[in-house]
Amino acid sequence: MALKQNLMGTIWQKKGSWRMEHIQLTAPDGRSADSLRIVHPGSVVLIPLTAEGNVVMIRQYRLPINQVILEVPAGTKEWDEDSEICAQRELREETGYRAKRFDLVCKFWPGPALADELMHLYIARDLTHDPLPMDFDEEIETAEIPLDELVAMALDGRMQDGKSIVAILRAHAWLTNEKTVRD
Amino acid sequence: MALKQNLMGTIWQKKGSWRMEHIQLTAPDGRSADSLRIVHPGSVVLIPLTAEGNVVMIRQYRLPINQVILEVPAGTKEWDEDSEICAQRELREETGYRAKRFDLVCKFWPGPALADELMHLYIARDLTHDPLPMDFDEEIETAEIPLDELVAMALDGRMQDGKSIVAILRAHAWLTNEKTVRD
Repeated sequence: MALKQNLMGTIWQKKGSWRMEHIQLTAPDGRSADSLRIVHPGSVVLIPLTAEGNVVMIRQYRLPINQVILEVPAGTKEWDEDSEICAQRELREETGYRAKRFDLVCKFWPGPALADELMHLYIARDLTHDPLPMDFDEEIETAEIPLDELVAMALDGRMQDGKSIVAILRAHAWLTNEKTVRD
Repeated sequence: MALKQNLMGTIWQKKGSWRMEHIQLTAPDGRSADSLRIVHPGSVVLIPLTAEGNVVMIRQYRLPINQVILEVPAGTKEWDEDSEICAQRELREETGYRAKRFDLVCKFWPGPALADELMHLYIARDLTHDPLPMDFDEEIETAEIPLDELVAMALDGRMQDGKSIVAILRAHAWLTNEKTVRD
């Protein structure tokens, strides 16, 4: 990269979590441009799978788009928090379930143009009821939906949340492969 | 939503494009929390498909993760810009091709927790060489890769850019369906 990067300052700090930095880029010929970078502790995204083959999905209000949308459970890690510990905590907070088994499917960047956030996708199984309280500014309803129906929704455009589309299609491929190997 | 939202100010304005606003949320009991909202003109994400069945992918440096990654071409709309006009412009800037045919596959939110950005996914076909200059702070290389290989990379974890995983898997399903209907 021929552009020089200068950190100009932090323009937003989420308490105890990620921060947003202003970076100035300068080319060898002196032209410059402003850029942003979110420095993020990472996050988890979950496919909680019931014994019946349903995924525990959530419906949640999203302020930027001012509507309630269907999503897979997900949440931000604490700095230095183990991803699987975070996965259990977010699962209990958002769905009321605890899982005995977590399988890491993959890691991906939801928005590498702006943030270094790396999402860890887990399939969570052997679920039992064991809720944790939610944050006061979160309002979440759960809905248990067959995985095959969610795959259809991800492929035909009814599901519109990017990370949820990735999670459903990747987990479905992973589970199909697990089944093939086992059978 | 029981929380009251107050706009506290704009904390970042990308010249001529999106802005980031600070919103304060207040519960009926007086507790409050700070939130952000990116107000965004929307964007396009492209599957440029050659006559040979290859997708014209790009390799691009991403500052937040400090590495070059494999992605589908994409870009931000101008305010009030028609999505298909934007698709043609970004295609020419990033790949050097112009397309005669665009098919809109779906729309999705890459990050609705932070932004109202709606991505329009197009398949671009009937490609001819007709480049536009790139921005000086962009450095892009193209790579033409068979769609089937990209589907495998999206499903086995080699592809790690969220919007690219969505775009490849959705476009593949759309094209498979198109072929089924036509045959």
